[in-house]
Amino acid sequence: MKVDGVSYRSIWRDAASDEVRIIDQRWLPHEFRVAALNTLEEFAGAIRDMWVRGAPLIGATAAYGVASEMAKNASDSHLDHVHAVLNATRPTAINLAWALDRCRTALRPLPEHERAMASRQLADAIADEDVEINRQIGLHGLSLIRDIASQKPAGEPVRLLTHCNAGWLATVDWGTATSPMYQAADAGIPLHVWVDETRPRNQGALTAWELGSHGIGHSYITDNAGGHLMQHGLVDMVITGTDRTTATGDVCNKIGTYLKALAARDNDIPFYVALPSPTIDWRVADGVGEIPIEDRPATEVSHIQGRAPDGGISPVQVTPEGSAVGNPAFDVTPARLVTGLITERGVCAASEDALTALFPDLARANSRAS
Amino acid sequence: MKVDGVSYRSIWRDAASDEVRIIDQRWLPHEFRVAALNTLEEFAGAIRDMWVRGAPLIGATAAYGVASEMAKNASDSHLDHVHAVLNATRPTAINLAWALDRCRTALRPLPEHERAMASRQLADAIADEDVEINRQIGLHGLSLIRDIASQKPAGEPVRLLTHCNAGWLATVDWGTATSPMYQAADAGIPLHVWVDETRPRNQGALTAWELGSHGIGHSYITDNAGGHLMQHGLVDMVITGTDRTTATGDVCNKIGTYLKALAARDNDIPFYVALPSPTIDWRVADGVGEIPIEDRPATEVSHIQGRAPDGGISPVQVTPEGSAVGNPAFDVTPARLVTGLITERGVCAASEDALTALFPDLARANSRAS
Repeated sequence: MKVDGVSYRSIWRDAASDEVRIIDQRWLPHEFRVAALNTLEEFAGAIRDMWVRGAPLIGATAAYGVASEMAKNASDSHLDHVHAVLNATRPTAINLAWALDRCRTALRPLPEHERAMASRQLADAIADEDVEINRQIGLHGLSLIRDIASQKPAGEPVRLLTHCNAGWLATVDWGTATSPMYQAADAGIPLHVWVDETRPRNQGALTAWELGSHGIGHSYITDNAGGHLMQHGLVDMVITGTDRTTATGDVCNKIGTYLKALAARDNDIPFYVALPSPTIDWRVADGVGEIPIEDRPATEVSHIQGRAPDGGISPVQVTPEGSAVGNPAFDVTPARLVTGLITERGVCAASEDALTALFPDLARANSRAS
Repeated sequence: MKVDGVSYRSIWRDAASDEVRIIDQRWLPHEFRVAALNTLEEFAGAIRDMWVRGAPLIGATAAYGVASEMAKNASDSHLDHVHAVLNATRPTAINLAWALDRCRTALRPLPEHERAMASRQLADAIADEDVEINRQIGLHGLSLIRDIASQKPAGEPVRLLTHCNAGWLATVDWGTATSPMYQAADAGIPLHVWVDETRPRNQGALTAWELGSHGIGHSYITDNAGGHLMQHGLVDMVITGTDRTTATGDVCNKIGTYLKALAARDNDIPFYVALPSPTIDWRVADGVGEIPIEDRPATEVSHIQGRAPDGGISPVQVTPEGSAVGNPAFDVTPARLVTGLITERGVCAASEDALTALFPDLARANSRAS
């Protein structure tokens, strides 16, 4: 999407130098820095140290890393080494293993002299596929937003609320939850987006930066504010992303999503979840009972990074000395609270029947019974 | 309550200097600083700029402010001026107007030369009454906690969740929501308190500091975490405070309280609100529709204060440049989500009938019909 009027993806090959470039997201929303990735250690570090984040972008970065290394040494042993090094960077990121396995499976049967070109084409394909999936999600979400806009006086903005950053910075482009917003804005529908801060890591600041850079009206709010806004008729629709969706439509997403779903239900506001089909876990039926929730480090809660009065980017500690911290990173929103799922194939109810009808191929290939 | 083994109130008259002293809460939980208040501007600033916060403490501070000014100029016009200046500092706080009206009503009939002493006695009485009310709230809440403890294996802690700081720092002593916790801890019942951070002003850090200073086990969590904890059976009971309670039992409290009430209801967890009867607004029936919600400055959300790496207390900006900020400070939890109200006269249902039965005198004196 756009930054100061220039279109960017979150990872790309520089036309002049042919280097792979990324947005170094550690400095956002305060500074827009582009970094070049050339060595294996640079690719691994960018994933491990979260210069890039978001499942689809992590997968694409790994694929570009494989391609970069195959241009230097296309041997079987180096292919295995690159796979191992990159796969160890974020052990829980399912897209990482998925992209690396896909690269190795495609490259291994090829003669070595074809691997550089093939891996390059594969990295581009993985990135392009993500962009196309997200674009389709956006188009399906756009029709939901258009319906709401059509019931309002002309010019009155559709007020959306989102949680976390399921934005283009977490994917290669468009984002998932944000893709309908970009499509609607580009279609000329006036919007105002309430952006949840999303403690503890404040990914709402990334969403606010994205929307502001693209010229979409928004307000940054605390995670506490959404219920009040909904009670007072200031939210027309909620759209979030998801890290994992069960076969039955339960949604595991960033901690706090469940609270917004409860508030949306209590105020009869549609609550939609945008997701690419690879995030559906066809083997899980009960999200609350079966999905293990990562408990992340206390320092993510106790310390907050921001721009210090001297202009530098610095953390401050907000908790008292000696207080314990709890930091569950995700929660599960039961399907009963989800109005619908926005996928690359269309919008469906959050239920096993609806998901199976929309993705009969995936449901069959991955079913719990299989 | 205790700080490093020494008992404090949150406002007191220094025995040696006769100055009014407060805990300057802007530096907590990192530094324990005491400030003296002497001029009207100091009293008004301490309330407006939240050196002191919490409805009962605001009311007591206003009463001490009136007394301080009456010692200098006890004229009718100055009494009106002091009332006006202090009353304008925090528009939502009902205790502020209540304390100021009480002072003016008591002082106006007196000859000027009696007003200094009378206002001084009145300020002390308002403070002492608050302490006694909160102690009674604690005893009534204690029996609820004792009931939960009796259904658990011996030694297993009762897990409470609270939002914001309805602690002794928000009152003159004991607190409201925390008073049952202090009573239970002092009675030997093992507790673990989940303390909501309470963005934007992170008053959860004050609650965590209070509980830690008194030796009560607790964990500081983000405002997003409570729903997940409730889904997984890790919360036995929620107790919050309230800034204003309607005659029908709707509860206006710090932004985000409503979301926790929804999660408690969705998981069949008792949700109690502790309140001194002066916070009941007998003239309001519909909390969501009738209570104006203060929209506070954007910088409260965009900047977070904490301890910087150099050891100083400093803010960092967490939002991107150019992003708008929404900052509604309170929300309303409808009575239908409240299991019960813990008052100084006992526990009752959140309903007009129950409140009127418990406080027939107040209901009659302040009824909407009157």
